[in-house]
Amino acid sequence: MTQPNLSMKRTLGTCYYPEHWPEDIWEEDARQMAELGLTWVRIGEFAWSRLEPSQGQFNFEWLDRAFDTLHRYGLKVVLGTPTATPPKWVCDKYPDMFARDLQGNLRKFGSRRHYCFSHLGYREQCRDIVTRLAERYGAHPALGAWQTDNEYGCHDTTLSYSDAARSGFQKWLANKYGNDISKLNAAWGNVFWSMEYAGYPEIDLPNLTATEANPAHWLEFRRYTSDQVVAFNRLQCDIIRKYSNAPISHNYMGRITDFDHFKVGADLDIATWDSYPIGFLADRAGASEGKQRHFMRQGDPDFQAFHHDLYRSVGKGRWWIMEQQPGPVNWAPVNPDPLPGMVRLWTWEAFAHGAETVAYFRWRQAPFAQEQMHAGILRPDSAKATAYYEAAQVAEELLQSPTTDCELADVAILFDYDADFSWAALNHVKDGDYFELIFDHYRALRRLGINIDILPASHRNFANYRCIIVPGLMHMDADLLSCLENSDALVIYGPATHSRTETLRISHPLPPNLSNLDVTVARIDTTRGDMPIPLSNGGHALRYREVLEGTATPILTDQQGGAIAVQNGSSVYLGAYLQDETLIQFYNHLLTETNIETLQLPQGLRKRVTKTEEFWFNYDCETMDTPHGTLEPAGVLRVPRKS
Amino acid sequence: MTQPNLSMKRTLGTCYYPEHWPEDIWEEDARQMAELGLTWVRIGEFAWSRLEPSQGQFNFEWLDRAFDTLHRYGLKVVLGTPTATPPKWVCDKYPDMFARDLQGNLRKFGSRRHYCFSHLGYREQCRDIVTRLAERYGAHPALGAWQTDNEYGCHDTTLSYSDAARSGFQKWLANKYGNDISKLNAAWGNVFWSMEYAGYPEIDLPNLTATEANPAHWLEFRRYTSDQVVAFNRLQCDIIRKYSNAPISHNYMGRITDFDHFKVGADLDIATWDSYPIGFLADRAGASEGKQRHFMRQGDPDFQAFHHDLYRSVGKGRWWIMEQQPGPVNWAPVNPDPLPGMVRLWTWEAFAHGAETVAYFRWRQAPFAQEQMHAGILRPDSAKATAYYEAAQVAEELLQSPTTDCELADVAILFDYDADFSWAALNHVKDGDYFELIFDHYRALRRLGINIDILPASHRNFANYRCIIVPGLMHMDADLLSCLENSDALVIYGPATHSRTETLRISHPLPPNLSNLDVTVARIDTTRGDMPIPLSNGGHALRYREVLEGTATPILTDQQGGAIAVQNGSSVYLGAYLQDETLIQFYNHLLTETNIETLQLPQGLRKRVTKTEEFWFNYDCETMDTPHGTLEPAGVLRVPRKS
Amino acid sequence: MTQPNLSMKRTLGTCYYPEHWPEDIWEEDARQMAELGLTWVRIGEFAWSRLEPSQGQFNFEWLDRAFDTLHRYGLKVVLGTPTATPPKWVCDKYPDMFARDLQGNLRKFGSRRHYCFSHLGYREQCRDIVTRLAERYGAHPALGAWQTDNEYGCHDTTLSYSDAARSGFQKWLANKYGNDISKLNAAWGNVFWSMEYAGYPEIDLPNLTATEANPAHWLEFRRYTSDQVVAFNRLQCDIIRKYSNAPISHNYMGRITDFDHFKVGADLDIATWDSYPIGFLADRAGASEGKQRHFMRQGDPDFQAFHHDLYRSVGKGRWWIMEQQPGPVNWAPVNPDPLPGMVRLWTWEAFAHGAETVAYFRWRQAPFAQEQMHAGILRPDSAKATAYYEAAQVAEELLQSPTTDCELADVAILFDYDADFSWAALNHVKDGDYFELIFDHYRALRRLGINIDILPASHRNFANYRCIIVPGLMHMDADLLSCLENSDALVIYGPATHSRTETLRISHPLPPNLSNLDVTVARIDTTRGDMPIPLSNGGHALRYREVLEGTATPILTDQQGGAIAVQNGSSVYLGAYLQDETLIQFYNHLLTETNIETLQLPQGLRKRVTKTEEFWFNYDCETMDTPHGTLEPAGVLRVPRKS
Repeated sequence: MTQPNLSMKRTLGTCYYPEHWPEDIWEEDARQMAELGLTWVRIGEFAWSRLEPSQGQFNFEWLDRAFDTLHRYGLKVVLGTPTATPPKWVCDKYPDMFARDLQGNLRKFGSRRHYCFSHLGYREQCRDIVTRLAERYGAHPALGAWQTDNEYGCHDTTLSYSDAARSGFQKWLANKYGNDISKLNAAWGNVFWSMEYAGYPEIDLPNLTATEANPAHWLEFRRYTSDQVVAFNRLQCDIIRKYSNAPISHNYMGRITDFDHFKVGADLDIATWDSYPIGFLADRAGASEGKQRHFMRQGDPDFQAFHHDLYRSVGKGRWWIMEQQPGPVNWAPVNPDPLPGMVRLWTWEAFAHGAETVAYFRWRQAPFAQEQMHAGILRPDSAKATAYYEAAQVAEELLQSPTTDCELADVAILFDYDADFSWAALNHVKDGDYFELIFDHYRALRRLGINIDILPASHRNFANYRCIIVPGLMHMDADLLSCLENSDALVIYGPATHSRTETLRISHPLPPNLSNLDVTVARIDTTRGDMPIPLSNGGHALRYREVLEGTATPILTDQQGGAIAVQNGSSVYLGAYLQDETLIQFYNHLLTETNIETLQLPQGLRKRVTKTEEFWFNYDCETMDTPHGTLEPAGVLRVPRKS
Repeated sequence: MTQPNLSMKRTLGTCYYPEHWPEDIWEEDARQMAELGLTWVRIGEFAWSRLEPSQGQFNFEWLDRAFDTLHRYGLKVVLGTPTATPPKWVCDKYPDMFARDLQGNLRKFGSRRHYCFSHLGYREQCRDIVTRLAERYGAHPALGAWQTDNEYGCHDTTLSYSDAARSGFQKWLANKYGNDISKLNAAWGNVFWSMEYAGYPEIDLPNLTATEANPAHWLEFRRYTSDQVVAFNRLQCDIIRKYSNAPISHNYMGRITDFDHFKVGADLDIATWDSYPIGFLADRAGASEGKQRHFMRQGDPDFQAFHHDLYRSVGKGRWWIMEQQPGPVNWAPVNPDPLPGMVRLWTWEAFAHGAETVAYFRWRQAPFAQEQMHAGILRPDSAKATAYYEAAQVAEELLQSPTTDCELADVAILFDYDADFSWAALNHVKDGDYFELIFDHYRALRRLGINIDILPASHRNFANYRCIIVPGLMHMDADLLSCLENSDALVIYGPATHSRTETLRISHPLPPNLSNLDVTVARIDTTRGDMPIPLSNGGHALRYREVLEGTATPILTDQQGGAIAVQNGSSVYLGAYLQDETLIQFYNHLLTETNIETLQLPQGLRKRVTKTEEFWFNYDCETMDTPHGTLEPAGVLRVPRKS
Repeated sequence: MTQPNLSMKRTLGTCYYPEHWPEDIWEEDARQMAELGLTWVRIGEFAWSRLEPSQGQFNFEWLDRAFDTLHRYGLKVVLGTPTATPPKWVCDKYPDMFARDLQGNLRKFGSRRHYCFSHLGYREQCRDIVTRLAERYGAHPALGAWQTDNEYGCHDTTLSYSDAARSGFQKWLANKYGNDISKLNAAWGNVFWSMEYAGYPEIDLPNLTATEANPAHWLEFRRYTSDQVVAFNRLQCDIIRKYSNAPISHNYMGRITDFDHFKVGADLDIATWDSYPIGFLADRAGASEGKQRHFMRQGDPDFQAFHHDLYRSVGKGRWWIMEQQPGPVNWAPVNPDPLPGMVRLWTWEAFAHGAETVAYFRWRQAPFAQEQMHAGILRPDSAKATAYYEAAQVAEELLQSPTTDCELADVAILFDYDADFSWAALNHVKDGDYFELIFDHYRALRRLGINIDILPASHRNFANYRCIIVPGLMHMDADLLSCLENSDALVIYGPATHSRTETLRISHPLPPNLSNLDVTVARIDTTRGDMPIPLSNGGHALRYREVLEGTATPILTDQQGGAIAVQNGSSVYLGAYLQDETLIQFYNHLLTETNIETLQLPQGLRKRVTKTEEFWFNYDCETMDTPHGTLEPAGVLRVPRKS
């Protein structure tokens, strides 16, 4: 991970759709944006049907005028490429460009993201419109940044079971395994059920098999799919860079793990994400029913922070929020009004985690189409909505803390998309997945009041870290393991870490096979969520537990004395899922031992430290005590750090 | 609404399938029907394969004999057109006549309702068989009435995603929007995600889009679909009227809102419906688990009454029950035996709401095929089943109250199928729909012991009403609003009333935009069902709540003082869903203020007043007190009104 | 039922996949198997791609060497035909050989069981490979037995909606009903909804109809489907018998009722089944949540015994366990580690029910492909897993009890696959099925500590039995009824027994129409699972209850005096589902009256008596008392019988 980007200006922005409004109100919109203190305006990402209403007929004049209007008020444009919404004529030109769902059904025109990443014809079509935009606006004085496409993976659109995907997958495999297909058969263990192939054209996609397909087959298909997103995005970056020096970004989503964000991010200058704390509470944050009730108007108190830390890493230090929830949205199971103050809290929390920019989605609520119930900074009648006032307050507060000042944390968690693919392929814990495991650990650490960095599995320089946590990393490169084993930090492995080869075979010798720690996973015991396993010193393991053998010292045991976690010096192996509170105590013990100072925060209170300030955020609907006094619901406390 | 049809004879009937039984028992069946006191026998509606076993080969002789047999015993025939069950040869002639489900799968031959309303070839085939029947039986002395088809919309067969539907939809849109497709694009807001069309042939059906389609797209598709049912039905009426003076009916179902029953009803003389109180309890009445337990053997105490009042309106005053549940049915999740007395109660309740006829489905339980577990008046072995004795009791009681005597109510609710289409298209409240909202209000009013009329949104003469209730009518014609605003009645609007244009855009100025009442819906707050919002004087709003601004006087507020309902003179706006008991108190207050006398009835007791009698119905399994003494479970009390 | 096969040697075995392992470890594997005391090794059943990697290219040498290696250590081979896993080239040769699911989707290559039983081309392909194997190994000195295919019906692969199935079904019907299709129309009651056919080519499969198809249509399709499994299996048996005298077996599964195991079994010498007590607990045993928690590490205490008794009957006295769960599996919702001792308990329980052989699946855990999380006797690293030690203990204990010694029981339950087809077709009790009903009765009897025999509906000689129980046998042959009515045993019929004709019409006179017992089912009352019907002497009926009329003496009544069960001499009719405890008391009363000695066992303790020993099994996680002292969790007590 690159150092966080210090001393960038903290700025605000919004998402705007000039094509949705009569041209005669653009001027007043721009004036009001500037008055509110916004710096950035993202435009264009759904406007293809207005930019090119039929093949080769381009209408850029209206967009020129929009650029000029915004420019007149000193606003900087983020220009989105419109490839998430190909117009009807593109779909008619390539009738097989749609993705197919798991059941094989076409996912048709009529909304958005109706394309298959594997379709090469569609990629060529994208090349054309992106080139035109880059040529025309790449050097426009108002242009501040680019966004490629919009929300890759949203609406479950990464995985596609189309013909294009099948033939692409066959070529990708041929390229990986080479002429001798027996290598693939051996690597996947296809002998198991006579699943051996005689040639690449025989290999179908892993959906719709009579019963479950080989997990190695799924894993490779997920890798292939991820690579198509990378290629699709890279094509756009390569074009843009020919015509423009402005930084390129993409707006990622929360808890989408279908493609490798680090690999996409390698081609971009800035990572951004679309943060909908209340919208994400039920389905993405995976909060319990009780938590969903308690935080109904606030969002999960750790879900945003996790993604801030993740995308800071994906962005190699540079990251934004491209779409910040400004009020009720339209698309979640329920769409409550945020608790007054939350828009400000979410904004400041992003800045505390190093965001350069927070942009609110959207400027004005649209009175039509799919998102007509989605709030904006303005109401449909242009009156100011709640978000306006909270954004105005932040704009004023930013005068005192104008620049980013993030620093490296003491504690890091490794997060690897390929590991997520493995967990999805293997179905290792029923109803459990890799993201959940990582997020469990992250939440426990956050409750201890510490800063956390999230690192990719390609990271090698761990010199700054005093504690490195590596749960669930099924396949681990030998040099990563070597780096970790040679690090001075406390390294906490498991569960399931270093348990599989690159093609998802159980490793030999049996996992985790660590040089510093004599421990072997003899077998795995998965259990009902309502049958927790009590531990000898209180607390519980639950749902997943490895039976550990070996001579390493147990530091957590069940009531029969069976080891749950073992330690040797600075190496720890944890062989189970732990209940939330048990995991907090586990880390509290280990961090304290490592001389990392911890606090035990209540459910809704969170802390984050930057180079210059200590931030306290109250996600709760009750007033909370902090060392610096009480903090009202939705309150933000900023305390200068003594240096 | 036409005045209820006064002084028609109250009669009983049954549904009979001569083709299911050996011809030598028809005579005895007819004799027993007459002996029981029945007037009407519906026949023929599933007999196409016996009437025309192959194209053009007609066998009417058996039906002639059935007519004659029934006629000999003084019974009157309702003849059903058999178009709900096209025989196999019709399907082979038009292999694309099947509907397609939401996933695009054909819904094949082998049960019933296996046709797509949009298929014009099938309509022509229907023209032929209906013409033959009308020619032959239109003037038969036994013929008393007609029924078109059977239960339009049952088994979710209104909406179809077939090729015929697509091309019909395109023509319907072209007809509505005219040559300039940009009018459609503008009305729908298709610019939103580059969903703009260059011509009508580009417009697909709204299913199987990558994510949700434009709500305007859905709304228009629902309107188109509804119009096909109207056209399908009208074709039959036009033929029948050429050959017959007998009134024409159709047997509607409970809680089917997929087509506009008022528009279908405009072409018919009588509305009838198929009332299965216990069968409908779980899935259609939407009763809570507790209510489903309590009323397991009785049915929801308001669901029948609602449909009685609805179909009285659809039938312009004339309505029947064509199929009355006589005992356990076969098709609900559980099929309990009714509480003894319920068949009589259901029958009298229908008469109290103005029914001319109650016909029991079916005469004799069939020992074969799909409905072999469905009770009849007789058992499969021709022994008398429970319903026989309860029907006999009603037949005797009718001697004292032989004629219909319904009168207009003081209170009316507007119910509009197009509004239901809008709610379905917009998904305004998650897991909430328009029917549920209307039924919530209806139930609350019923618990106050008053008569209610249900009116279509095309109604304009409100002179008779002292209170008019208009919840959820998203789009309202200007002249309807004007009629309401000029009425002397107390008018209660909302939630969501007058909030959208005809193509489902948020109205400008913001809703509800009423001339008598200064109130604006600033935004909408939807919340979990287990997180009710406590009100300042007790009670709760829940799930859906509009944030109201403006100067109108709050009459219901939350504990922070936010307005839930506001009033100015005789105009009231309610901006939330209320819990059942809260809604009852809300109406109790308003009706009392309007000098409409109310009672507060317990959960299972209901009251209905006609011109000459006061009826009390005990749906409960416990004895209940009434002002006229106690009433046993399943009891019916008829008290003459003092005049 | 043939007498249980007395005095066969009790043996152990395992399932082994030489093709999964380097050839240089086969020798050591064989040596260890022999050392552990195993007799049998099943091989080959998934190895087609290694035996015939392309059409006509046979590689048998490796299998020869595997045979020889095992032979050298005195092990006997069960050779499986590999037809459950056709290689890719077979699927490419017959691209329409895949089954289609209920929605019509192909179930493609990439796992196993990817064939449709109706596909005649695939059957021919199977003929070829089976012939080659039978020729080559039929007389090999190591060959001890054959297995056809693998787990017919696993992964819901019996029912297929393919074109091959449709055309096979039409021919099967033509063969059954003959030239005059009106016989079929009459038998099915197709007149009901104009579903009449003019010829067999018109008859489609019963899936994807607009609403539910005729239950008679479903029933015949299930019978047709079952017959295809029989034919598929018979083809293999016929070939094998030409070349080999070794007995032929198939490994059935738990709770698969999609085909008639008795008919398949008629062509085989030995029935075997694959017993996964913990894997089956949630989905197949149908255990309540509380039971699933209590027996999470043990499995349902009756599910194995039921299948032991069933397959003893299917095997005409000869039966094995071909796959015994040895530790955690990979495919259930949760996969816990068994309670220590359970592998031994399960093994002894099988022997107590007459098993000749118990073979553990599998020898060594595979580190790759779909089942890599499935335990074996050895771990993937060849270390001994838990099952090794428990199997070793059994091997030693067998020295004292070396031979089978099963005897006929006093009490028999009739179990009929055709009855299951009827229940599935008619959907008689919502969420209830025939297996559940039979298993309810079986469990109640087991709790009374008695031995039970399970008999097919083709059984006629009941001389040995003192009590015969016949629940749910909707259609009963006249001669079976006559045998039962003439038997000296107490015969307990119902619910739903003798209620339907062969094509699922309600019988006339109404059911049960017994000559010894005047009782008639007037109608059926199905009710919510949470609304049990209290009985007059305690206990409850629930979910399904027949309203009984007639003069027979009630022996169980509801609180209104309505009969639930009636008796006349040695004939009893039970007209309801009873709660578990109520059913136990019902049987306790009747068996005691019949002088069959009962015990009332606690939830987890079970007893089984053989000719020479009394066995006690403790499925509980607590210590239990027996008449012979306490028994630890997972304990097995063997007490010699006094003779």
